[in-house]
Formats: sequence, C-alpha cells, structure tokens
Amino acid sequence: MSSAPITLYTWGTPNGHKASIVLEELGIPFEVKPIDISTNVQKEEWFLKINPNGRIPAIVDHKRGDFPVFESGAIMLYLAEHYDPEHKLFPQDANARSSVIQWLMFQMAGVGPMQGQANHFFRYAPEKIPYGIKRYQDETLRLYGVLERALSEPTADGQPRQWLSSDNKYSIADVANFSWVRIHDWSGVSLESVPKVKEWVERIAARPAVQKGLAVPESK
Amino acid sequence: MSSAPITLYTWGTPNGHKASIVLEELGIPFEVKPIDISTNVQKEEWFLKINPNGRIPAIVDHKRGDFPVFESGAIMLYLAEHYDPEHKLFPQDANARSSVIQWLMFQMAGVGPMQGQANHFFRYAPEKIPYGIKRYQDETLRLYGVLERALSEPTADGQPRQWLSSDNKYSIADVANFSWVRIHDWSGVSLESVPKVKEWVERIAARPAVQKGLAVPESK
Repeated sequence: MSSAPITLYTWGTPNGHKASIVLEELGIPFEVKPIDISTNVQKEEWFLKINPNGRIPAIVDHKRGDFPVFESGAIMLYLAEHYDPEHKLFPQDANARSSVIQWLMFQMAGVGPMQGQANHFFRYAPEKIPYGIKRYQDETLRLYGVLERALSEPTADGQPRQWLSSDNKYSIADVANFSWVRIHDWSGVSLESVPKVKEWVERIAARPAVQKGLAVPESK
Repeated sequence: MSSAPITLYTWGTPNGHKASIVLEELGIPFEVKPIDISTNVQKEEWFLKINPNGRIPAIVDHKRGDFPVFESGAIMLYLAEHYDPEHKLFPQDANARSSVIQWLMFQMAGVGPMQGQANHFFRYAPEKIPYGIKRYQDETLRLYGVLERALSEPTADGQPRQWLSSDNKYSIADVANFSWVRIHDWSGVSLESVPKVKEWVERIAARPAVQKGLAVPESK
C-alpha cells in the first residue's frame, strides 16, 4: 500500500475532478487508482465495498481506519471536515458554511444530473431524440442563469462578487459547479449569455491546484 | 409575521416533504406558505430572493436573522445543525455522520433527479418517448437495488440493518430517500424486486411525524 493518507479511485470526469481538485487545493498526498469506467470495473464486488453505487469517484482514508467515502459531494465535505483546518475551501462561519452547502447541493442535484443528461442525449444516445437534447440543454442553461444571477449580485458591503459562498471566498461550491460548467461545449451549451459565469470559470481554471487536479488520473 | 421560528415555502412533492418531515420529526414550530408550483409563483422576484433557483422547498429562519436556505438537502443539514441538539436525525460520530451525508448525496444526485426524469417521461412529456421512459425507470430501479443491498447487509455487530446510516439509526438520509421511493408507483417502478426497501419504506411511513410531514401543505 501507498503511504499517502488517501487513495482516490477516479477517472477523468467532472465528478472525478471535484475530488482531485480538492485534494490538490488542500495539499493532501493521495494515490490515484484509475478506474476505467468503460470496462465496468466499477461494478466489481471489490469496488462495491468501497462505493455500493458502483461509480467514481470514491476515496479511502488510510489515516482514519481505511474509511471509505462515495459520492463526490460527500467526499468534498469529508475532506473539508478532516483536512481543511485553515478553512481554505469551507468557511467556519455557520451561515457562510450553509451557503456553500446550498450551492454544492444545487450542483449535485441540478447542474450535474441535468448536464449529464444533456451529454447523454447530445453525444451518446443510440437514437437521436431532439426532445431529450433540447430538454436537458435548456435546463442546463437555465441553471447556468441561476449561477449568473448569483455572481452578478454585489456582496453586502458592495464588493464585486467573485465566488458563490456568501462570504465571497473560494470554496468547494465553486469547485463542484466549475467541474461541470467548464465542459459546457461538450454538452452543446454556450456561455455566451452568462458572461459572469464565463469569467468565474476562467478565474478558477487559472488556479495551479485546479490545473493539477484536472490532470488526474491521466498524468499521475 | 408568525411567531414560529421557521417559515417553510413548500408544495406536496417529494422534495417538499423532506423538509416538512424533518421539521415534524424535530418538533420545530413552523409556518407553511404553500407555493403552488403550477402557477409559477416560485419564479417571482420576491421568491428568488429566498431561493435563486426558483423551486420548492425553501425555508427562512427567523431566529437566525431571517436566514434563507434553499435545496432540500441543504435544508435538512441546516435543521440538523441548528435544531437537533439530541442528534435524533443526524449522528454525532464523524464516520456515521459522513455515512449519512453519503446516502443523502446519493438521493440528491441519483434517486431524486433520475426518478424525477422517470416521472417526466412516464407522466408528463407531451411526446411518448419509450427510450426516455425506459432509461429513467431502469436507472431508478438500479438505484433502488443499491439501497436494497445496503439494507440487506447486517451491521458490524451482526444486527439486522434497519436504517441507512452506518450506526444503524434513523436519520435524514432515510427521510430523503424515503420521500422519493414511496412514490415509486407514480414513476411506474415496482418494489417487488427490492423487499428490504419495501419493509424500510413501511417502517418509515408508520412514524407519526412522517405522517404529519406528508400532510404538508394540504392539511396545515
């Protein structure tokens, strides 16, 4: 076994990148186990013991009794709780913390599943179904519009808003939403009508830890 | 204004019921503002200040400076943090707490969106699209199978598993998944192949606080 505290089972997808970006941002040493989802290895019995849902990402924390965590949103909250004592990605204040959880849930329940379905109907479905393509591209763009509105409102003290958290600091909520919005082209959705979202994506993409996280698992 | 600490903006849907059940289980006084989503009142400017995503449920906490919370998963975690000092619905132990968050995320990112799409294609879509119906009913049943597996595994000390949390105690993870699984018939999905899930649904449905929560907003 590796001496790194965390093993990350992942593949180069938006949900996988949420985990690898957070690990890089927090400077947590981690070993990568690539899970090529095209081979269905994620449905094998040994992996279902780590993630009963048979999907990536999942982590195992060797410093805490080989504790396994599945669901990218749960992994982000777990790493924030145990590996972010300086509150780099998750605020200490209760209200700011709730605002981060609200935008994280918005991504987990909205942007991720809906953009994922846009990808399916636009790219992968064996039948071309215009109703499905339009339904999910429209909903994805509607959700981007919600982000645009949030990023357009100045903070309580009149500063321009840079980040989703109510304390206007970078957080796991930005990482989660970014990981999906950045591949908008792949889903056939443009950022033309949401300029604040476009700037925010560029701001996040410029971070060195984000660039390292996006290279996982390929370059590890 | 009401003297209740919480105002709940809701409608009789699975996501709405998550919030009302948790409020009832924790015995928190709350005022109900019914939001008839068929009228699109949830897209009006006053409501977008409470929930920028324009959906139900949302809460406003008058005891904490009229703090607003959107996304049902974030509402559940918020109420657990501020109104559950006895840990009735959210464990104190870090690992059990993470297991609850994992199963909550599984519902928010999986069961909810996928069963919601099954409802859409099975019930509401103006075109009958067999591909869409089958895709989402199959995925819903697959996710129920993940719950079945979890509920079939005995606990570490050999007890039958009753609840999703790793400490085998009732939690917000059960409430979240239950609120969707209970309407499986509406989605055209049977529980015949998942008997443990069926028993678990009946166990939750028998709780008086759940019955009260399911009657919101109609009977309030």
